[in-house]
Amino acid sequence: MSCECEKGPTPRWSSLANKPTSSVIRDLLKLAARPEVISFAGGLPSPAGFPLEAIAKACQTVIDRDGRHALQYSMVEGEVELRREIARRETQKGIPTTAEQVQVVSGSQQALDLLARVFLDNGDKVLVESPTYMGALQAFDLCNPTYVELPCDEQGLNPAAFGEECRGAKFAYVMPTASNPTGLTISEERRKLLAEKAREYDMWLVEDDPYGELWYDKEPPASLRKWAPERTIRLGTLSKVLAPGFRLGYIIAPAEVLNKIATIKQAVDLHTATFTQLISAQVFSEDLLVTHLPSVRARYKKHAMAMLEALDEYMPEGVTWTHPNAGMFIWVTLPEHIDATALMNEVLAKNVAYVPGESFYATNPQKNHFRLSFVTVDPDVIREGVKRLAEVIRLHITI
Amino acid sequence: MSCECEKGPTPRWSSLANKPTSSVIRDLLKLAARPEVISFAGGLPSPAGFPLEAIAKACQTVIDRDGRHALQYSMVEGEVELRREIARRETQKGIPTTAEQVQVVSGSQQALDLLARVFLDNGDKVLVESPTYMGALQAFDLCNPTYVELPCDEQGLNPAAFGEECRGAKFAYVMPTASNPTGLTISEERRKLLAEKAREYDMWLVEDDPYGELWYDKEPPASLRKWAPERTIRLGTLSKVLAPGFRLGYIIAPAEVLNKIATIKQAVDLHTATFTQLISAQVFSEDLLVTHLPSVRARYKKHAMAMLEALDEYMPEGVTWTHPNAGMFIWVTLPEHIDATALMNEVLAKNVAYVPGESFYATNPQKNHFRLSFVTVDPDVIREGVKRLAEVIRLHITI
Repeated sequence: MSCECEKGPTPRWSSLANKPTSSVIRDLLKLAARPEVISFAGGLPSPAGFPLEAIAKACQTVIDRDGRHALQYSMVEGEVELRREIARRETQKGIPTTAEQVQVVSGSQQALDLLARVFLDNGDKVLVESPTYMGALQAFDLCNPTYVELPCDEQGLNPAAFGEECRGAKFAYVMPTASNPTGLTISEERRKLLAEKAREYDMWLVEDDPYGELWYDKEPPASLRKWAPERTIRLGTLSKVLAPGFRLGYIIAPAEVLNKIATIKQAVDLHTATFTQLISAQVFSEDLLVTHLPSVRARYKKHAMAMLEALDEYMPEGVTWTHPNAGMFIWVTLPEHIDATALMNEVLAKNVAYVPGESFYATNPQKNHFRLSFVTVDPDVIREGVKRLAEVIRLHITI
Repeated sequence: MSCECEKGPTPRWSSLANKPTSSVIRDLLKLAARPEVISFAGGLPSPAGFPLEAIAKACQTVIDRDGRHALQYSMVEGEVELRREIARRETQKGIPTTAEQVQVVSGSQQALDLLARVFLDNGDKVLVESPTYMGALQAFDLCNPTYVELPCDEQGLNPAAFGEECRGAKFAYVMPTASNPTGLTISEERRKLLAEKAREYDMWLVEDDPYGELWYDKEPPASLRKWAPERTIRLGTLSKVLAPGFRLGYIIAPAEVLNKIATIKQAVDLHTATFTQLISAQVFSEDLLVTHLPSVRARYKKHAMAMLEALDEYMPEGVTWTHPNAGMFIWVTLPEHIDATALMNEVLAKNVAYVPGESFYATNPQKNHFRLSFVTVDPDVIREGVKRLAEVIRLHITI
């Protein structure tokens, strides 16, 4: 590569590829990957919950029964067996759904990208919670929207306070159950009101629901589809109930939205992998969600309780946190003068890690928060990690 | 859905989603899916060539050895085992390659989308062959480029005739081996010249190579990476050598391009499925390509020969076609006054189908061509189909 003729062409990237990307948080999180670190920074489901045997058996069944079909190209909408199983599950949960209302995607991250491309031109208005899911911002950012933050309070999104900021938005993106990053679940009453407000301001609702199946004691309120079926685009994923390594998600939406999405998806990746779709359909058809999920829910609850107890025991006064009923995250609020990003270096020095909260804001980053994930850390270790974290924070508390 | 309050929101799509899409060809191809049709319109590999047993065994091996890893989230670049196997195969074919030079993608269609997003702003110049691969145009179209058609002759792309049209292009997209749709393979001499021209006009070369392993008698000339490693972005796929139902492709490119691609891919789908990557790596590690591909090559050659013989025997004077040495397609040229799209209705009435050629042009659609695919039709049936096709065409030949 030393010869002059092998000099590469002058890079002339797209404006998208030329956008500066902040690497502060990414670099911090790389340090969190050291094996000696007790990391609450992950967002992975617990691999202890993967139904390995059921999946191995399903692989064999699918190959034996219909291997050549499972390995061939498929349709952009997804395999009908899987769409039917997803529809069946939605129906079980109380909202009658047909396979035709389901589009399979390559993980729900792809759903976010496709929705952005279907709805957003440069500068278009998108409404998001504050804080909101970082991955959604990353997907939407590719289309350069204008973000407007929706009114929120300590119970999360507060539709009663919605006003003119909603006017003209292409859609509102919300995660009503066990939100990433806050762990908060929006009440049934607020969901109903959200649907009314969406109608009032003539906007679509994008309901991202990766954690809805991971409740601890009580099923969360119904999907927004119950209150606003005509304007809800519901995103789901198999990553948290089956296996993230399959990269399977889905979109449930009115036909006009699904048609637009299918056209773009065709150009973007033709279709999602046939093989993993059929394996998942097979596992679902054996009612795995009914038999397998209770153990996952029990495990996640146990970890959540361990972390909440440790927070209660060790955290100094002035620090508060959310109390999730489902999902994988707790959101911690420090006194306003403490910068959780800056604090990360001290925390890492104690071999603990979290995700600094500022990454989860579309427009007005608040620095005094961080996100804790607890499902991949053993309860004993959670206790030790929270203790160390509290020690660092205590040094900065000034009462 | 009859209640007034359930009227959906006013659709306000992105300009992308508002683009009109032509459905003429799509509607014709739907008719080709009737079971009684002898369809040469497909683009699928022959499922007879899928190594079912090897894949079933690999599923079991991967789950037994490392199931929890195989089902978990992974890295955006792809699983290192698969990247290593892809690099090993490239090295076997004569161009030393390391795993770091390989990005795994969700089918090579995704590679086309990612490249478009990394390089193209609205109106940017992209060079393409005439005709070129329809799926590439669909992916690039999402970024609204300006297409310029490269000089081609009956041997395909002709770099000797390249001139000022190359100036300022972001990249040239080419399929040098067994092109879809023409079946033509660019000679070694022309590849070398193409590399020189790319250097002269300071442009990137996107080399799409889905069919390079599917040669009949003799390996095709080396990848463009041999002549212009510093400016070649090579796209490959496992769809034609292993299984399209896995949706696995890859990009081999200089580090600066891979970095940009990884950033976008992260936002678009996080990463490609861990599970199918590890299964494929396992199958590859057993040297499947060396032991399995000869039978696929022999089958494809047999089908190609059957179709070429039938064309020789039945087609009237005035009709010409390409003679592929690899791949899945033959490109037929009719006398200029015959419109292959219009003819499709008569052809379908005889229960035969092809893909009308006009879909394969970026800017100047020529109507007197069509594409024939032969690998999924039995040789006897190929003969009957070509005979019927020739009968329809003969009615329109005026000598």
